[in-house]
This record gives sequence, structure tokens and C-alpha cells, in this order.
Amino acid sequence: MRLSSYFLPTLKEDPAEAQIVSHRLMLRAGMVRQASAGIYSWLPLGLRVLRKVEQIVRQEQDAAGCQEILMPTIQSADLWRESGRYDGYGKEMLRIIDRHDREMLYGPTNEELVTDIFRNTVRSYRDLPTLLYHIQWKFRDEMRPRFGVMRGREFLMKDAYSFDLDYDAARRSYNKMFVSYLRTFARMGLQAIPMQADTGPIGGDLSHEFIILAETGESEVYCHKDYLTFDPLAAGIDYEADLQPVVDQWTSLYAATDEKHDPASVDAIGDALLQARGIEVGHIFYFGTKYSRAMNATVTGPDGSEIVAEMGSYGIGVSRLVGAIIEAYHDDSGIVWPDSVAPFSVGLLNLRSGDTACDVACDDMYGKLRAAGLDVLYDDRDERAGGKFADMDLIGVPWQLIVGPRGLKSGTVEVKRRATGEREELSVEAALSRVSS
Amino acid sequence: MRLSSYFLPTLKEDPAEAQIVSHRLMLRAGMVRQASAGIYSWLPLGLRVLRKVEQIVRQEQDAAGCQEILMPTIQSADLWRESGRYDGYGKEMLRIIDRHDREMLYGPTNEELVTDIFRNTVRSYRDLPTLLYHIQWKFRDEMRPRFGVMRGREFLMKDAYSFDLDYDAARRSYNKMFVSYLRTFARMGLQAIPMQADTGPIGGDLSHEFIILAETGESEVYCHKDYLTFDPLAAGIDYEADLQPVVDQWTSLYAATDEKHDPASVDAIGDALLQARGIEVGHIFYFGTKYSRAMNATVTGPDGSEIVAEMGSYGIGVSRLVGAIIEAYHDDSGIVWPDSVAPFSVGLLNLRSGDTACDVACDDMYGKLRAAGLDVLYDDRDERAGGKFADMDLIGVPWQLIVGPRGLKSGTVEVKRRATGEREELSVEAALSRVSS
Repeated sequence: MRLSSYFLPTLKEDPAEAQIVSHRLMLRAGMVRQASAGIYSWLPLGLRVLRKVEQIVRQEQDAAGCQEILMPTIQSADLWRESGRYDGYGKEMLRIIDRHDREMLYGPTNEELVTDIFRNTVRSYRDLPTLLYHIQWKFRDEMRPRFGVMRGREFLMKDAYSFDLDYDAARRSYNKMFVSYLRTFARMGLQAIPMQADTGPIGGDLSHEFIILAETGESEVYCHKDYLTFDPLAAGIDYEADLQPVVDQWTSLYAATDEKHDPASVDAIGDALLQARGIEVGHIFYFGTKYSRAMNATVTGPDGSEIVAEMGSYGIGVSRLVGAIIEAYHDDSGIVWPDSVAPFSVGLLNLRSGDTACDVACDDMYGKLRAAGLDVLYDDRDERAGGKFADMDLIGVPWQLIVGPRGLKSGTVEVKRRATGEREELSVEAALSRVSS
Repeated sequence: MRLSSYFLPTLKEDPAEAQIVSHRLMLRAGMVRQASAGIYSWLPLGLRVLRKVEQIVRQEQDAAGCQEILMPTIQSADLWRESGRYDGYGKEMLRIIDRHDREMLYGPTNEELVTDIFRNTVRSYRDLPTLLYHIQWKFRDEMRPRFGVMRGREFLMKDAYSFDLDYDAARRSYNKMFVSYLRTFARMGLQAIPMQADTGPIGGDLSHEFIILAETGESEVYCHKDYLTFDPLAAGIDYEADLQPVVDQWTSLYAATDEKHDPASVDAIGDALLQARGIEVGHIFYFGTKYSRAMNATVTGPDGSEIVAEMGSYGIGVSRLVGAIIEAYHDDSGIVWPDSVAPFSVGLLNLRSGDTACDVACDDMYGKLRAAGLDVLYDDRDERAGGKFADMDLIGVPWQLIVGPRGLKSGTVEVKRRATGEREELSVEAALSRVSS
């Protein structure tokens, strides 16, 4: 993409309304613009990151044997009356009356709707386990929306639902999602720590929050520091094998949010206790037959009897993750994207657009990088070098290729790694190979 | 994908509520389920097709120089008051009151919101033309939703918006979208014919509907039969060149919807006049400064004066297209997907699951086809052959590989092309190569 024709409205100044760093940087980097309170439009750069995050979530759900569907945003109030949640859900639910005076709502979550699909389509125990997920916009009418996409009203969520024959099978589905979540976040460069959690309005007996550590995180968390040495991607995973040992490993050490933290219980941990700031990026629940019983979601068992399905639900805040990654990866100059979610992998800076040697060299490199399948942002604007450096640092592209007239005379360009600030003078060929690796 | 574990709830009987063939077949093939009146959940098979259609639309928008953004579904009523459309839009607009008693709405279209983004970010004539699009769910509260996804209330639409400095430039943007639409539909196997149209609630001076022909189409249309010989994909296209000759070619012949048809004017056409059924799949508008003037969307011109941007908007019904393609491509046995939008490219039928020779041969072919990058639906269920034939015909996968014990003994399998019904006995190797081509 040539920056001269790219819709990238960066801001030089910090916007006054942004209180936290991810909100500030997403506005400054031209990733989003507010449409109304807690509701955002995603501009091209932001949408690229959102799609990369979404695609990692999708791949890991698919790998775990979960099947993608897409439920609508608008639901009928009647379904929520069946589960008993309609009246109790409170003002966070956006309630709507349609032209025929029917009560509708903008889905804040989808337990009811997916249970309705299940009961209308699945008949036999032989069709279980059934694991379904979708990635769809949700709406929660927060009292005080703030912190940009971290606590918006309209937000993109991946929510998965499992249907099983009994507790043991439901636990296996829970474990699949538990492990798949660790891998999902790790692929984005995030060390997520599972912490026992309250089940809140979803209900249920067993629940874990996945919390990532970031200095600017929203809440205080406590965990054993050995968690920082665990790597969920170190080995491959077989989702058909028994995952309980993996879950046990990840739940054997102390980890608690502020709400659940018990100072008395951590004496034995001593210096190994880490106190840090955290951000919730995922939440999983096992809640048995809470919805399936109320909504009569049953299958025929091997002996012909009707069995009420055991259920769980599993959420990841996809749009929230974009903010959370920035909270974890930024410096004074701007965003520092991990490679896996970067909007572009290479930024190509032409320090003297209009100079024939620079233009020819840059056009040539631009063509070669794109031919190699890389996403390249080519700053071909007629701007001062200082402005180009600042913008490319701000938007956080992992590799920068800096091309100026002086270097070209001696046949070199500069390669800069955004994360470390490290710079190298290399031949054009060596530079191309460095950023492609 | 193994059918034994795929969430594909096909129906043997025609559902009573479905009046048209695409609605009937989408329900029977397990592509969608109704969630409420005019609101659908997309199941895995349907979602695959929706994403393929969406991706073709995206690629052709990108190729035409349009940049993707993503605006939210919920908008503020205040913006629509600025344009003057809030009170007049009528009951099709889903109006919402949030917890702070602010008036909101579920966007039926996005002229106001995109104009707001434009006026807050674009300052100079040098940044024009600006072409932005998004692919997002819309809501129109139809009085009588019907015909499945063809006239739903919640639907997926691609809407693009152009901002230009003057009429000539705006016309160039209009022409880009005109040509890109022809190519988009052609890639899905659809011959779309542009017809002069009323501008309706969008307003404006110039407008074309894109209508595809299908025997079961919703309305009567009239056009010169030479349109059927035009192929928008016959030659490549350079969007920076003058596209007026292409637009002229496609608007030089008679084409009119029932509303606009003038029997007196077609005498000269004689036998070349085709009367047919049509389905609207796209609609483009040039409306000048209707919104930009009301909302004060201006840029600074070369001489420092403020210039009100010239605008157009361009819509494609993405979810509607899934139904429209089925209306154009089906037979008595089910759907007949064009290759470019098929949910799977190959169906592999194991006629005797459990028979070692059949299982080994099928597993081997399944592995090889997937390794070649093909989307394969492998019917490994323990079902009668008749049911497998019927399901695979119903869901319309373009190629079928039929593997039975008798053929295997002589080293052959059967290859069937869904569109023609043509069958061939081939060696395993020849069969694999046939369906991969």
C-alpha cells in the first residue's frame, strides 16, 4: 500500500478524551474514530489488525474442533424469557421494539439463541459433542463506556458453546477450550494466565478468566512467577488426547484477581508471588444444564431416554484484544506490534520522494517485497524525513526499510527493527532478505 | 471436513414456510435457520458460501481502489437529523433508545456516518478522490419479511462511498464502481445487467440497478438480448484508464425494469427484446452534494477556497446474493453451485463406510485432495448410498468422487460433475487430477 493514497489520518497531538494508552494510540495512529459514546468506526489500519486477531482466534477454534456459524445481532426477547434472563439482565441489555411492537434485543451474548438452534437440529447422542462458535458484534449498554475499544458498547466477540452428554464429556470440551485459549493468546505474543473466576450473569459451577499482564492493565492480579516460564506453544497439541494434565499444570500454581485474592493463602509462596496489573481477554464457563433444561434442549440417549445436554460457553473479546495488545506492546514513540498481528510487516520509507535514485530503488524494493507475499506500507509521500520516522514508529510496523540518497550512493539502505530500535546498514539485497525472514 | 462430525442439519422435506426455491433449498441444505421473522442464523455450510461471496466482493472493491473500513451497526440519530433523513425515513428504520435516553438507530445504510468520518479527517483536495467501503450487517424493518435471505430484516451489505472534487471526478468514481460491479457478479457466474433506476430514499441524479436474470426472479425485466453475449471478464481492466467507453457499451442497449419499461420505445428492437425475470443484486448512486452540503463536508481547494465534496454511494447485497445465486443455479435435486462460490469444491462419497478397502481408498484420496489445497467434504457416514447421493446433490458441491467396493476391485472410482450430471469411471489418479483442475 502506498501511503500517499492510503486512508490513514494520524494525529500529532494526544486526543484529550483518551485516558489510557491504547485508546490514545489507536486514535493517533488512525486506527479508529469514535462514532458515538463507546461505539467506533474501524479505519483501514485498525481493521487490518482486527482481522488478523480474528483470524488467529478462528484458526485456533477450528483446530480445537469447534465449528463456525454466524448468529444475528438482533434476537427475540421471547427466547430470553424462556431462559429466565430477560427481566433480570438489567440496563446493559439494549432492548428494542420493532415496527410490529415485538420486543427484541441486541445480543449481549448468545446462550439462548444457540440453544434454540441446537434443540431444533440435534436429535441423537451420536451427534455429540457439538461445539459451535461465532464471531459477531455484540452490544452492552455500559453505564460509562470508556477506554476506547477496551470497554466499548458495540464490540466484536468470539463466543463458543459446547453441548455434551454428561459431565465428563462437558469437562473434555471445557478443557479443549482452555488449552485453545492459551494457544490463541500466545500466538498474539500474550502470556495469558487462567484465574478462577466468578460466573456472574452467565451462571455455572466452573469458570476461568484469562488475564494478560500489562503495566497499564485495568486491575490488580497476583500469580506465581513461574507462570511466566510456561509456553503453550512449546509443543504441539492433540485435541483428541486427554488434556487434563495440561489444564492441571496451568491451574496448579497460585493465580487470583484482586476480588479473589486471599493474602493469607500466599504466605508459602513468598518471593515467588508476582503482583502485577492485568487485563481480561477471555472467559470460559461450564454451567451444566442451566439453559438446556429451561429451554428443553435434549437428545435421545443410547437407551432411548431423553437426556438434557450439558453446556459450557467460551468468550474472547476480539476487538478488546486489539487494545490489550497495545497496552502490552508500546513505548514512548507509539505502538510496537508483535509480528503475528501487525497491520503491515514492513514499512518502506523513501526519505526523498521525487529524487530519481530514491524513487527507482524504492519502487523496485516495493515490488520485490510484495511479490514475496509481504504486506508493505510504502511511505512515498512528499514529507520531511522526521515526519516519516515519527509516523512509522507511531503505527508500529515491525520492520522499517529506510532508503535515502546518501546510503544509495554507497549501495546501502538502513533496516530498523521497531521493537528494539536496532539499526543496520545493509545492501539492498541483504536488507530485503532480513525483513522477509 | 468429515460429514460424520460436520454440523449439517439437512431436511428431507420441503419446509412449509418457504415460498421460493432459494429459501427452500437453503433450509433443506442446512445453510441457515430462522432466528426471528426475517432474521437468520448462518450454519457452517451457509457461512462458507457467504464468506466466498463476501471475499469476491472485497477483492473487486480493492482492485478498483476502494479502501475497506468497518463502521458500527448502531448509529446516533443526531447524524441523521443533520442530513434531514431521520424523520422521513419511516418505519423501516429500527429506532432505539439507549439507557441514557439517547435516540439511536440500527443503520439501514451509512451515508451520514461515512460523511462524518470524511469531514473529521480529510482536509485537502490533494486527498481526493477518497473511496471507502465496508461490509457490515444492516437492518431494515420490512413490513413483511419473506423469501428467506432475499428480503430479510438483518442482512449483510457492502456499501461504498466516493468523495470527489467535482462532477467529472465523481463520474470517474461512479464508472469505477459500475465496472467493478459487472466483474464482481460475473465472477460468481452471474450476468448482471445495469438498468436505469429511480434513486429512492438515497436521492440523486444518476443511478443504476444491477439485475441478474433468473427464471424465478422477483420482477419482470426487459432487455436487448445482446446483453447475454457481453463478458466483463473477457479482458483485464485498468481502473486508472478512462472507463467511459466500457460504461457506454453497457448502457447503449435497451434495459428496463417493469417500472421503467416503455413498450412504445422498444418497437425498433423487435425480436431482439428479451422479456425475463430478474433479481436486483446491486445499486449505485451519484447524488452530488446532497449529504456533504447538509453536513458541511468540505475540503480546501488548490486556491484555498472551501469546496463541498461530490458524493456517490454503491451497494451490493452480500447475503441476498447467496439466495440470488441459488435462484439462478438449481435443479430438481438441489443447488448447483458455480465453482467460485461453492462451499466445498469436491464431495467424496464413501458408498460403504466400514468396508476396509473403501475406507482406506477414501482416507487416502481425502488426504491427497486436502494436501492439494482443495476444500473437500468427505461423506464418511454410516448411511445408505441413496441418502448420500441425495444429500450431495442437494448441497450442490461441483464435483463428486464416488467410491464403492465394486469399482475399487477394478481400480476405478466414479467422477460426477454436478452441473451436467455427467459421470465417468476413472482410475483413482485420473479422478483426483480431474477434480483438481
